[in-house]
Amino acid sequence: MSLILSKKAQEVKPSSTLAITAKAKELRAQGMDVVGFGAGEPDFNTPNHINEAAVQAIHSGFTKYTPASGMSELKEAVCKKFESFNHIHYEANQIVISNGAKHSLTNIFSAILNPLDEVLIPSPYWLSYPEIVKLADGVPVFIRCEKSKDYKITAKQLADAVTEKTKAFILNNPGNPTGALYTKEELEEIAKVAIEKEFYIIADEIYEHLVYTNQPFVSIASLGKEIYERTITCSGVSKSYSMTGWRIGYTGSSKEIARLMGNIQSHQTSNPNSIAQKAAIEALTGEQKSIEQMRQEFDRRRNYMYQKILGIPYISTIIPQGAFYVFVDVSELLSMKYKNETIKTAAQLAKILIEDYQVAVVPCEDFGFDDHIRLSYAISMEQIEKGLDRIASLIGECTH
Amino acid sequence: MSLILSKKAQEVKPSSTLAITAKAKELRAQGMDVVGFGAGEPDFNTPNHINEAAVQAIHSGFTKYTPASGMSELKEAVCKKFESFNHIHYEANQIVISNGAKHSLTNIFSAILNPLDEVLIPSPYWLSYPEIVKLADGVPVFIRCEKSKDYKITAKQLADAVTEKTKAFILNNPGNPTGALYTKEELEEIAKVAIEKEFYIIADEIYEHLVYTNQPFVSIASLGKEIYERTITCSGVSKSYSMTGWRIGYTGSSKEIARLMGNIQSHQTSNPNSIAQKAAIEALTGEQKSIEQMRQEFDRRRNYMYQKILGIPYISTIIPQGAFYVFVDVSELLSMKYKNETIKTAAQLAKILIEDYQVAVVPCEDFGFDDHIRLSYAISMEQIEKGLDRIASLIGECTH
Repeated sequence: MSLILSKKAQEVKPSSTLAITAKAKELRAQGMDVVGFGAGEPDFNTPNHINEAAVQAIHSGFTKYTPASGMSELKEAVCKKFESFNHIHYEANQIVISNGAKHSLTNIFSAILNPLDEVLIPSPYWLSYPEIVKLADGVPVFIRCEKSKDYKITAKQLADAVTEKTKAFILNNPGNPTGALYTKEELEEIAKVAIEKEFYIIADEIYEHLVYTNQPFVSIASLGKEIYERTITCSGVSKSYSMTGWRIGYTGSSKEIARLMGNIQSHQTSNPNSIAQKAAIEALTGEQKSIEQMRQEFDRRRNYMYQKILGIPYISTIIPQGAFYVFVDVSELLSMKYKNETIKTAAQLAKILIEDYQVAVVPCEDFGFDDHIRLSYAISMEQIEKGLDRIASLIGECTH
Repeated sequence: MSLILSKKAQEVKPSSTLAITAKAKELRAQGMDVVGFGAGEPDFNTPNHINEAAVQAIHSGFTKYTPASGMSELKEAVCKKFESFNHIHYEANQIVISNGAKHSLTNIFSAILNPLDEVLIPSPYWLSYPEIVKLADGVPVFIRCEKSKDYKITAKQLADAVTEKTKAFILNNPGNPTGALYTKEELEEIAKVAIEKEFYIIADEIYEHLVYTNQPFVSIASLGKEIYERTITCSGVSKSYSMTGWRIGYTGSSKEIARLMGNIQSHQTSNPNSIAQKAAIEALTGEQKSIEQMRQEFDRRRNYMYQKILGIPYISTIIPQGAFYVFVDVSELLSMKYKNETIKTAAQLAKILIEDYQVAVVPCEDFGFDDHIRLSYAISMEQIEKGLDRIASLIGECTH
């Protein structure tokens, strides 16, 4: 007796990164030479041996249903990877294979949240976190992190934000959009808070292989039995193996949470693509050298980009230690004038950049920081150079 | 400050069809000759030309993100199929490509339901419907259909079930588990109710190509402008092209509902597998003869199975007109004794069948009918014959 649509669905923010990408695409179609700093995926091909495993799956007729929460063989491969790389022990019945890490996060919050439960999210954050939490009836609670702390949350900030309603905390390590990496000591402090105050840690470690410093990557669930029991570790093959289009993510959690996620997935989506599961097995168990090759190339670009940004006035950044983004503070520019108009927000700056300089950047209002932009280095060195030169040109035109 | 898991998630029923499949698998692993009537997918390979389109996608590096709601080219292919086969006109921005029809249903209910909205579901029903509705905060309301009406809902029954809270009605045509097919006249009557009483029709037409009678398949959204506006039509490539493992479903709806579903999907799962999207384009636009070949083979099995069941005492069925299931009424058996034990439910019958006769059938309690079983004919004629002989043997052992 009513055609009123879902209130919750109507409140979902469309992704602002997609709007920039669409604009860039439109200008390219008009023949313009656009530099796109918006990329959220590696600019490398999926390695050949992974592709060939998929082709073999197709040719052998492996195109039917698999168990809804993923094939046993893939779960075993994920367990081995968790054991050897993350130093976390999970059994196969603690693993759920999903349609990518976003889907894993959706399953996680569906399994753990009751209406109005609070989820602590350090800001800046990846823009889908709050939307995923809200769609699962949770309340995102943002904790603003300081540039002076490399935009990382401190244990004290975390403890202070906990309320009676706190159910979980999202720890994205290494982080998007900042590239920040938590040290073992920082993670131990965070773990203490989670154990003492009783909430779950959702460890989103999708960028785990893309770390550029001597400081080792540490999974928080590896730090002891108590924090292991409170952590749901989430990753996937997308970023590590340049497999974004294949859509395979996975989680390690308690058996009970895995059981709930598996039940939900059995009704809501059923198994992830069977061929992609075979490809993911090859990715996790086959030759691993592509990871290091990709990492080294990203590292080269990261260093170049960071140095070049240091030489541009009015903008600044921390040195990213992981992922493939540089999070650029443009707050000093925001009081300045361009063509007699005061630049008020990063979104306005991004609009000028795409329209007058054909450079696509991601303004970070939807990441919680409206005076920052995100630049991806998942594009070629030549493009990075050209794009940063154009940004410098714009800044050269700005006046107080 | 609490580790209590989601109440809603804990109430999700694990699929009972999966339990039977697991038991059958276990017995097969022990070397037993099990006949499995549980199959929910065609026992044919994905056609070669579709496989080759996927292989080409892989070799050309088409393994990256696509637009979250699906590639334009696939949406256009879906529009053409809706136009030519279903006689419904949708524009590309009314289409959302998902990870299979289950996922489409999940998106639909996320887009249209507010908490406690009622969704009318004719019983017997496909077992995931109530779980999908409940996960989206809706309330499933079941309407029991009569065997004498081929288990189809009447317009009067539908109208009588509408309340102030009614938001939608699920019309599965052809239906799982019954194989029933609605006539154009029946659909017109149903459409009138939906228009008069103002609710959405969710037309799940995943079995649309598997129809075995001279009576044509009719899509309810094709019956006029008003019902078109109230209908969300849902289908996919899984059953029609034997592509269950690829996970590609789609919907046609109003632009506004498509927009909401696209926004939700952009955060919850992102795009479906890029390679499977290319395969789906080939499925929908390439050579179509595999559909008719498969349909004819299913029809042959259907006739054989129906005739053979007619000759077995104490069980009965309607003649299925679509899909690939026979819905068998075993109520007469339920007062009878086997090995001095009274058979009380279809579930108990299924247990005896798998344990003593190595035949896996689906007891339909979770489909709303605890005195019926579902037999799939997506297995070979030889298996069908052997399995029905075994069922007849069991029945021969039963006494009053």
